[in-house]
Amino acid sequence: MRRWDDEQEVLDLVERRIRDVVIGAPGPVRDIALHLVDAGGKRVRPKVVVHASRVGGTTSGAVVDLATAAELMHNASLLHDDVIDEAPLRRGRPSARKIWGNAHSVLAGDHLMTCALQILESSEVPGVLKTMLVTMRRLVAAEVVQLAHRGRLLPDREHYYQVVKGKTAALFCWCAEAGARAGGADDAICQALAEYGEESGMAFQLFDDLLDLSGSTDEMGKSLLSDIAQGVATLPVVLAAQAQPHLVEEILAGGGGTGALDLESLVVSVRHWVEATGAGEETRRLAREHITRAVAALRPLGDGPHRDRLEQLARTMIDRRS
Amino acid sequence: MRRWDDEQEVLDLVERRIRDVVIGAPGPVRDIALHLVDAGGKRVRPKVVVHASRVGGTTSGAVVDLATAAELMHNASLLHDDVIDEAPLRRGRPSARKIWGNAHSVLAGDHLMTCALQILESSEVPGVLKTMLVTMRRLVAAEVVQLAHRGRLLPDREHYYQVVKGKTAALFCWCAEAGARAGGADDAICQALAEYGEESGMAFQLFDDLLDLSGSTDEMGKSLLSDIAQGVATLPVVLAAQAQPHLVEEILAGGGGTGALDLESLVVSVRHWVEATGAGEETRRLAREHITRAVAALRPLGDGPHRDRLEQLARTMIDRRS
Repeated sequence: MRRWDDEQEVLDLVERRIRDVVIGAPGPVRDIALHLVDAGGKRVRPKVVVHASRVGGTTSGAVVDLATAAELMHNASLLHDDVIDEAPLRRGRPSARKIWGNAHSVLAGDHLMTCALQILESSEVPGVLKTMLVTMRRLVAAEVVQLAHRGRLLPDREHYYQVVKGKTAALFCWCAEAGARAGGADDAICQALAEYGEESGMAFQLFDDLLDLSGSTDEMGKSLLSDIAQGVATLPVVLAAQAQPHLVEEILAGGGGTGALDLESLVVSVRHWVEATGAGEETRRLAREHITRAVAALRPLGDGPHRDRLEQLARTMIDRRS
Repeated sequence: MRRWDDEQEVLDLVERRIRDVVIGAPGPVRDIALHLVDAGGKRVRPKVVVHASRVGGTTSGAVVDLATAAELMHNASLLHDDVIDEAPLRRGRPSARKIWGNAHSVLAGDHLMTCALQILESSEVPGVLKTMLVTMRRLVAAEVVQLAHRGRLLPDREHYYQVVKGKTAALFCWCAEAGARAGGADDAICQALAEYGEESGMAFQLFDDLLDLSGSTDEMGKSLLSDIAQGVATLPVVLAAQAQPHLVEEILAGGGGTGALDLESLVVSVRHWVEATGAGEETRRLAREHITRAVAALRPLGDGPHRDRLEQLARTMIDRRS
């Protein structure tokens, strides 16, 4: 067991470890994984693992294992997700499947997933592989729910939540709980951290949805149209559509088919529409609510620097520019 | 630890267990998995697990776990494989991706894979999860090699072997070794069984390639054309093409594009061509050679009923009608 002086030092080790795994992948799988890893993810999942591990008082080498596995698993799920959604873009760049095709994306996903599990299998933290497999089951179940809504105009709020819980919150939950376990925290604390992770993950996703609306016009226009057409819209759009259902049909009629409505007008009108219906503000409110719950879940930790730092980390989920 | 009187009793339990897992899957994933499981696989991998477990003297409940996990993992890999190959057919029926689409096939594969790993994680046999993850890495690496050959006219023999070792032999190797371990065999015996499994798997695949040539004209014609076009031909075709390279081009020119050569003529000429060049006989000879090596690997077991039954099982790999 070794102690590190600050989180950044550990995160640098995680970054190097992720790169080592990716560089060791066979041929095109390496290229795909590098493409994704280089696109500059925020490494928020590793951050949750590392911060949570401090609660138990130590930061062991196993924390690097767990944080690396979390980020690899996240990237694996993105690769399969792009194939599932037939997505043309990911993090503002052409998606891996758009460049390398479905076949390589499926394989690269399988590879990263297997590497993540191998790291967990050989780490010395009991139970983290088992809970990761449960997390993977939640992820698949959420994708199934999302697919079931394909073709309908828009999902309702309940379905949106079901999907986000499985696709985003589940892995955040794992990160916080597994991190705490690696740091030697007891069961009650680990459970508190699991809840903290789940709520932080929900907030993260809701805020991501808001950020989507402020992307470049071109980018946002394309993803907006494909989202709406596939019934996988973000929460602000779902809420706005609930407030004024006829607008979705108008937009699809104007921008989806013939291109009568250009992308710029589409984006301008959706942004206006989200704010005018109060859907943007409602999404911000819900995100803040999840952060409040995440922070409340930390109560069993008592006051102190560990709790403060986790609270601070949670607040960054809804206070960022990308 | 419980003893069963015969292998069939254990295999019936495995069958029920596979069904339980599949039926527990969410919505369309269940339908896809049932479609695949009902297509009547031969359950040859569970058979290898169960027979190998006898070597250690006992058949514990863990054997059912391992055999179930092997078959689930096999089916998971078929689902992803179909997406990777863009295959229209599987086991003579429309492939899952043809009926349910790529998205559901990727998800169903992820689901079955995760279930298989969960079963291994909670089984009490040490090391089998770790070796399964290594097996999964071999599988992905082989798919990558196969994909690298897409677009070339035909793979050479060496590449064909690389692919088959990773895609088929690796899981057979796991089945035999893990089975032996579940039965309580010592390390030397487990290693012998691993080699037995690897060689049996090679023989199984080579014989499968021969069976492909004797399928119905329509079925064989379609898969033959798509195989040759994608550079993933079976060994008899690879060997025949090496003997008379111009034939492949003739076939592609005649049957691939304009359809000037009808499927029936194509099949008749390829069958003729495989036999005339001696490629069929050479494939049979190679398959027998792998069985000889599989049987030789059993030497450390000494004489006795366990060895005899494993030898008998190996011989069924190249003596079957489907």
